[in-house]
Amino acid sequence: MDDDLASGTQPEGGAATAGRRRFDLDRTLALSDGIFAFALTLLVLSITVPAIGDAGSSEELAQALSDRSGELISWLISFAVIAGFWVRHNALTRLLVRVNGPFIVINFVFLALIALVPYPTELLGRFSNSTSFAFYAIVIALLVVVNAVEGDYAVTRGLTSKKEGPGERRARLVDSLSPAVVFLVSIPVVMVGGVLAGYLCWVAIAPVNVVTGRFAERARGT
Amino acid sequence: MDDDLASGTQPEGGAATAGRRRFDLDRTLALSDGIFAFALTLLVLSITVPAIGDAGSSEELAQALSDRSGELISWLISFAVIAGFWVRHNALTRLLVRVNGPFIVINFVFLALIALVPYPTELLGRFSNSTSFAFYAIVIALLVVVNAVEGDYAVTRGLTSKKEGPGERRARLVDSLSPAVVFLVSIPVVMVGGVLAGYLCWVAIAPVNVVTGRFAERARGT
Amino acid sequence: MDDDLASGTQPEGGAATAGRRRFDLDRTLALSDGIFAFALTLLVLSITVPAIGDAGSSEELAQALSDRSGELISWLISFAVIAGFWVRHNALTRLLVRVNGPFIVINFVFLALIALVPYPTELLGRFSNSTSFAFYAIVIALLVVVNAVEGDYAVTRGLTSKKEGPGERRARLVDSLSPAVVFLVSIPVVMVGGVLAGYLCWVAIAPVNVVTGRFAERARGT
Amino acid sequence: MDDDLASGTQPEGGAATAGRRRFDLDRTLALSDGIFAFALTLLVLSITVPAIGDAGSSEELAQALSDRSGELISWLISFAVIAGFWVRHNALTRLLVRVNGPFIVINFVFLALIALVPYPTELLGRFSNSTSFAFYAIVIALLVVVNAVEGDYAVTRGLTSKKEGPGERRARLVDSLSPAVVFLVSIPVVMVGGVLAGYLCWVAIAPVNVVTGRFAERARGT
Repeated sequence: MDDDLASGTQPEGGAATAGRRRFDLDRTLALSDGIFAFALTLLVLSITVPAIGDAGSSEELAQALSDRSGELISWLISFAVIAGFWVRHNALTRLLVRVNGPFIVINFVFLALIALVPYPTELLGRFSNSTSFAFYAIVIALLVVVNAVEGDYAVTRGLTSKKEGPGERRARLVDSLSPAVVFLVSIPVVMVGGVLAGYLCWVAIAPVNVVTGRFAERARGT
Repeated sequence: MDDDLASGTQPEGGAATAGRRRFDLDRTLALSDGIFAFALTLLVLSITVPAIGDAGSSEELAQALSDRSGELISWLISFAVIAGFWVRHNALTRLLVRVNGPFIVINFVFLALIALVPYPTELLGRFSNSTSFAFYAIVIALLVVVNAVEGDYAVTRGLTSKKEGPGERRARLVDSLSPAVVFLVSIPVVMVGGVLAGYLCWVAIAPVNVVTGRFAERARGT
Repeated sequence: MDDDLASGTQPEGGAATAGRRRFDLDRTLALSDGIFAFALTLLVLSITVPAIGDAGSSEELAQALSDRSGELISWLISFAVIAGFWVRHNALTRLLVRVNGPFIVINFVFLALIALVPYPTELLGRFSNSTSFAFYAIVIALLVVVNAVEGDYAVTRGLTSKKEGPGERRARLVDSLSPAVVFLVSIPVVMVGGVLAGYLCWVAIAPVNVVTGRFAERARGT
Repeated sequence: MDDDLASGTQPEGGAATAGRRRFDLDRTLALSDGIFAFALTLLVLSITVPAIGDAGSSEELAQALSDRSGELISWLISFAVIAGFWVRHNALTRLLVRVNGPFIVINFVFLALIALVPYPTELLGRFSNSTSFAFYAIVIALLVVVNAVEGDYAVTRGLTSKKEGPGERRARLVDSLSPAVVFLVSIPVVMVGGVLAGYLCWVAIAPVNVVTGRFAERARGT
C-alpha cells in the first residue's frame, strides 16, 4: 500500500504521469464531495422524532417539537460548520495541481472528522451540558487544525499552483488556525459560564476571522 | 473565510480565472447533486418497520402495512417535491457561467432545507394532524422562497448566460414564488377543514403553476 | 415547472442546445448514480444488531447472528437486484444522446422505486411470510416494468443513438419485461408452496432471461 | 442482462466503442466512489448515543462516552480499513483502460463487502468478544481476496494499460493477498489470547505489507 500512496512523489514525466495525476486528483475530490454531501444530509438524523403515540394530538406534537429546538439549533450549527469547511476545502483544492500519498492520508484524517460530526451534533442537541459542548468543540478544533495542516502541506510541498514567502505563510497559518483557538477557549468558558456563554464564544469566530483575514491579505501584499 | 467566499466577484482575467470558475461551479454542482440524491434515498427511513414480533403472521403484517399507508403517501409526496426542486435547480444551474460567494451561501441555505425534508416527512407520515402538516408546508414554502431568491440573485448579478428585462423578471418571480403562496394558504385550510382539505390544496399547485408559467412565457415574448 | 421539463423537446439548434443537452444528461446520470450508490449502501441498515446485552457472551452473539441469516440473504438478494438494475440502466443511458422532460419523469419514478428497495428488503429479512414476499415481488416487478418503459420511451422518441425495426422492438420488450412475469408468478407460488418455493421461482429468472436474450439477439440479426 | 454485461468483451472498433468504454468506465468509477464515500460516512451510525435521560448530568455523559471508547476505536479502524481499500482500488482503476461484464460483477462483489463493513463494525464496537472479532476479520479477509482477484483479472485480461511477466504476477499476488492471511490468523489468536492479542495481530499488517511490497517491487525490477 505504501508505495501506491507514495507514488505521486516519484520523479516521472510525460503524458502518462499527467493522466495519473489528474485521475488521483479527480477521484480524491469526488470522494471528498461525496463525504461532505452525505455528512451534511446525515445530520438530519440527529433531530429525533417525538416518541408520543401515533394518535398524538396537534398540541402534544407542537409541544414536543418546541422541546426539540435544541436539536434544531445544533443541526443548524453543524450544517453551517461543515458548509464552512467545504468552502475552505474548496479554496484549497482549487489550487491543487496534483496529490501525493501523504496528502491523501491527511485528507482522509480530515474527512474522518467531517464524517464524525453528526455524532457530537446529536450529543449537543440532546444533552445540553458542558461534556457534550466540550466534545463538540474539540472535534471542530481538530478539524480546523487538520485543515490548516492539509493546506500547509499542499503549499509547502509544491502540490499547488501557488508559491508564497515566509511572511505569507505565517499570516496564512494564523488565519487558518485562529478558529481552533476560539473553539478551545470556549470549553473553559462553558464550564464556568454555562452553555449560553459558550455559544456566544463561538459567535466571536466571525469577527476574529475578519481580523486574521485582513492580516493574511496584507502579508500577501494585496 | 469571507474573502475566499467573495473571491469569485473580484475583477480578474485570463485562463486561470476561467479554470477557477469552472472548478467552483463543478464542485458546487457535485455537492448539490450528492445532497439531492442522498435526501431522496434517506426518505425511505421515514417508512417504519412494523413492531410486531418476528414470528408475526402474514395477516398481521398485511394489516400493519396498510396502517402505514400514510407513511407511504408522505414518502411519495416528498420524493416528488424534492425531484421537482431538482428539476428547478437543474434549470437554474444549467444557465450558470460562474458562482460567487453569496451565491454559494444561498445555495447552502437551499441545500440545508432539502437535507431537512426527511424530518418533516417522517412527522407528516406518523402524525396526521395540523401541526405536522403546518411544519411540512412551512419547510416547503421556505424552499420555494430560497429557490426563487437563488435564481433571482444569479440572473440579476450576471452569473447566468441569460439577460432579462424588468417585465420578464416580475413574471419569473410570480411564477417561482406562487407555489409558496399555495403552501402557506394550505395551513389555515388544514386547521379549519382537516388534513384532507390541506392535501387537496397542495394538488392546486399544478394548475396554478401552469397559469403562472404561461404568464412568464408571454413576458419573455416566446 | 412544466415548460422547464418539456424544454428538451423543443426544436432548437447550435452549440448552446448541445451544451444544454450535455448538461441535463450529465446531471441526470450523476443523480442516478448517487441514488444507486446510496440505496446499495443503505441496505446494510436492514441487518439488525442483536438486542442482547453488551456483556453478551461469544456463544450468544454467534447464535443471534445465525438467527439473522434471513436478513443477510435478503440483503444479498437486494444488492444483486439493484446491481442488476444498474447494469440495465447503464446499458440504456450509454445509448442516450439527450434527455427530455418526460424521460426525466420516468427516470425519477424508476429511481423512487430503487430508493424504496431497502424497505421491502428489511421486511423480507425480518418477516419470512407471504405478505413480505409478495410486497417485495411487486416492488421488483414494478421496477422491471418502469425500466422497460424508460428504455422503450428513449428508443422510440429518438433520445438514443440507436434505431430499431418493429421486430426488434417486440423482442426487446419481451426480453425486458419477462422478469416481471416471473416475479408476479412467484406471488401465488409462495402462497401455495411456501417461501422456499418462491425463492426457487426467482432463481428461474436467469434461464428465462437467457432465452429471451437469445430471442432479442436473433431479432436484431446479430 | 448477460449480453449487456458481456458486451464489453466483443470485438468492435471505432469511436463509438471508445465512447462506450469511457462511459462504462466512468460510471463504474462514479458508483464505486459513491459507495466508498457513503460507507465511510455511514460508519458514524455505529457509535451509539448514550441512553441516559435528556436531563443527564455532565458527569453521567462523560462516563457514558468513555464507556463508548470501544465503539470509537472500531469506528476508527473501519474508517482506516475502507480508506486503505480506496487507495488500493484507486491504484487499480487508475490503470484501467476499459471494463467488461465479469469485471463489473467482481467489482460489485467488492463493493457489496465495502457496503457491509458498517455492520461488523457495529458488532465489534458493541460486543468485544471472539465472535464479533472473527466476523469482522472474515469480512476484511474476503475484501482482501476479492480485491486481489479484481486486480488479477484486470491485469491478466488486458483491461489495464500495464503488462507483466509471470514473476511479477506471483509477487503482486503475494503482496495483495498477504493481509488476508494476517486477518485469518488473527481469528485463532483471539480465541486463545483474547481480543487485545487479536488487535496486536492486525497491527502486524503494516510491517508484513512493507516486506511483501519490497518483494513485489524487486520482481518488477524497480
